[in-house]
Amino acid sequence: MKKIHVVDTTLRDGSHAIGHSFSVEDVTKIAQGLDASGVELIEISHGDGINGSSYNYGFMKSSEMELLKAASKVIRNAKLTVLLLPGIGTVEDLKYVHEHCGVTAVRVATHVSEADISKQHIEAAKELGMTAVGFLMLAHMSTPSEIAEQAKLMESYGADYINIADSAGHLLPENVSEIIKTVCSAVSIPVGFHAHNNLALAMGNTLAAIEAGATYVDGTLCGLGAGAGNTQLEVLAGVLDLKGLDSGLDFYGLMDVAKDVVTPIMKRPQIIDEDSLMVGYAGVYSSFFLHVKRAAEKFQLESRDILVELGKRKMVGGQEDMIIDVAYQLSQKK
Amino acid sequence: MKKIHVVDTTLRDGSHAIGHSFSVEDVTKIAQGLDASGVELIEISHGDGINGSSYNYGFMKSSEMELLKAASKVIRNAKLTVLLLPGIGTVEDLKYVHEHCGVTAVRVATHVSEADISKQHIEAAKELGMTAVGFLMLAHMSTPSEIAEQAKLMESYGADYINIADSAGHLLPENVSEIIKTVCSAVSIPVGFHAHNNLALAMGNTLAAIEAGATYVDGTLCGLGAGAGNTQLEVLAGVLDLKGLDSGLDFYGLMDVAKDVVTPIMKRPQIIDEDSLMVGYAGVYSSFFLHVKRAAEKFQLESRDILVELGKRKMVGGQEDMIIDVAYQLSQKK
Repeated sequence: MKKIHVVDTTLRDGSHAIGHSFSVEDVTKIAQGLDASGVELIEISHGDGINGSSYNYGFMKSSEMELLKAASKVIRNAKLTVLLLPGIGTVEDLKYVHEHCGVTAVRVATHVSEADISKQHIEAAKELGMTAVGFLMLAHMSTPSEIAEQAKLMESYGADYINIADSAGHLLPENVSEIIKTVCSAVSIPVGFHAHNNLALAMGNTLAAIEAGATYVDGTLCGLGAGAGNTQLEVLAGVLDLKGLDSGLDFYGLMDVAKDVVTPIMKRPQIIDEDSLMVGYAGVYSSFFLHVKRAAEKFQLESRDILVELGKRKMVGGQEDMIIDVAYQLSQKK
Repeated sequence: MKKIHVVDTTLRDGSHAIGHSFSVEDVTKIAQGLDASGVELIEISHGDGINGSSYNYGFMKSSEMELLKAASKVIRNAKLTVLLLPGIGTVEDLKYVHEHCGVTAVRVATHVSEADISKQHIEAAKELGMTAVGFLMLAHMSTPSEIAEQAKLMESYGADYINIADSAGHLLPENVSEIIKTVCSAVSIPVGFHAHNNLALAMGNTLAAIEAGATYVDGTLCGLGAGAGNTQLEVLAGVLDLKGLDSGLDFYGLMDVAKDVVTPIMKRPQIIDEDSLMVGYAGVYSSFFLHVKRAAEKFQLESRDILVELGKRKMVGGQEDMIIDVAYQLSQKK
């Protein structure tokens, strides 16, 4: 029976969906439930990775250090994992959480074309004896062969596996399949996949990734996550079971944590509304929204038309100041 | 460019999700929006098909006749469609709505192994000059070749296309693919697919059906429907566009109706909770729930264990009285 390794990111990607307000008590209960239910990696960080708590990305209610320490007390089998975006998190942060908070794995995340900035962090993690994952975000912005080249870089730095992230929820199953196959052929380490549900395809794409050779997949309880959320973990446990794949997950156990602990914390249901649908359709960063809405008002345009244009131009985080130019150009065309 | 025909069932399957409480005003606005956005068939009926309004299946707030007449006044291009389950709806009902309510198409729905009871209704529809669709429910309960035999029966009665329904939301993409391919090879009329989202696979399965040869697909605005709901129509419009398929749908128009008209009517968000997940996982009728919960209390069992056992025994609607036997047997094993 094919083994599928399941990574939970409720306490990291899910953090976006509740304004980074997880308490020590929430984290203790959720981490304990995930660990008892057979999840292999439990990722806990600010939504934008370790040290993300800031004016720019939103402040956390409780510090990452507190949350990680609380989780480390209750985790018996899983690897306590952080996400680290080079530039936001540093090698020093990584050393600190490894030494003081029981963190044993790190996923080093870069834009899909910028694997080279992960070198020092992956190498540092391996020197510390940690599991190190190369995590490539916004995969829809590169071709499969370009992604494979970036994955090879991360492999050369010592990554234990490569995780491909459809951060905007823009990919279709056939795209996922082609990317995963190409990356699997290029590297000799395992390959994983992180889905978003903006086009209602989180589960479909996760299965397409597995069919194409991925052996690590991400999920979150109740699908809690940025935009339309992630692959719903407790549903994934049932689906993998029906497919005859060995995930080692306790289906009922995960359902119980989802219902009893996560559902009461949620600020809104994890549905696909116009905003998250348009992010997925256009293939843009969800952090563009506020800027786009302001620009739309200023130039009497529809937000969605601006989003589509930004997607066409493959705008990435950091280019927010160009949104107003795009809106101006669209208004001139009108 | 491959043409995909899109059928909306917000005002039929979606009726389950709001306790059959659509008003004439709701139906007018929704039908108008769907028609203006290029939907080809607009299905309006009680959730259990025409004449379903009853103590057994739940009473409707407004009569089907009123709702159909209201829709018929505003529809310009779409075919006004009813669902008909032989035994609940009759040939007389069909004649009535055709003559008095502007109904031009009917989907005659039977259990997946009982196509033979659709004969008189499909034939009557064709005699009336209507479009007639053979609709096979709970497709996960038969093998692909058995389903193909039933589809051939419906074709022989005069059906214009065959619609395969994953009523419990239990199928995986590979199952859908195999069923649709087998049915497409067996009949010379088009084949369609109706998904439910209990395993978060409504969209993934709909795309698998299209890849396998289906040219008609069902959706509902906001995913409104029984259990975890159906394929979310406005999202489907975006996805078909990204796939380069011609659906004739106005993506923005559908988003607007979803947000402005359907969202305010909804009684609860269309998420996957434990109940709908267990229906999908076990592959049983959602109407079993109340009986199962009672039996679980009586024998101090978990509802989900009873559901799984009912699924294994392939229980269908009408066998509700056997739930107590199953629960008794499970309690003896314990």
